[in-house]
Amino acid sequence: MSVSLDPAIADRLRRTDDGLVPAIVQQHDTGEVLMLAWMDDEALHRTLTTGRATYWSRSRQEYWVKGETSGNPQHVHEVRLDCDGDTLLVRVDQVGVACHTGARTCFDEGLLSD
Amino acid sequence: MSVSLDPAIADRLRRTDDGLVPAIVQQHDTGEVLMLAWMDDEALHRTLTTGRATYWSRSRQEYWVKGETSGNPQHVHEVRLDCDGDTLLVRVDQVGVACHTGARTCFDEGLLSD
Repeated sequence: MSVSLDPAIADRLRRTDDGLVPAIVQQHDTGEVLMLAWMDDEALHRTLTTGRATYWSRSRQEYWVKGETSGNPQHVHEVRLDCDGDTLLVRVDQVGVACHTGARTCFDEGLLSD
Repeated sequence: MSVSLDPAIADRLRRTDDGLVPAIVQQHDTGEVLMLAWMDDEALHRTLTTGRATYWSRSRQEYWVKGETSGNPQHVHEVRLDCDGDTLLVRVDQVGVACHTGARTCFDEGLLSD
């Protein structure tokens, strides 16, 4: 296991001014979009090497291993980077619910109408 | 059809400093995550009222009706806002391919390995 993110991957990332990349989190088998989170290089490194989805919390300004406090971890199946290097797709097996509200996904309650 | 975004929706949006919200775009039936794009209030308004996915292009600084130049439009099935109002999920029927590279999704080629 390397100690930091593979430079070949780091070179492809296009980050925000805060050094972050949005990560779309998807249930690997059903295709449900669970949530959007943010990663810096270190969070991506930890996600790839530990197999546990790890994000950067913009509100708390700290790393956040999904499920560490909630008991609802995300086991990582694969991580993909998009064509222009500015978005990640993290395909996981979500134990329990993804949303802090107790809903399965963060989008369950949010249907918008015209 | 209203002339601007419903204030009840606008009040729920939490935007970046640039006034944007990331929009995850998903094929409505297969669950494929196609791409990530960005919307401001007006793009969301146009998306909801026209049924054609419309984004704000950060690189070109202009509105962008998906498919208008590529011939690969996205017909909108539903739009959802997440639990904290800072991410949209746009469920569409993608005609043809979503990615400018000619791939079906922007993530097809981007598998990362540890």
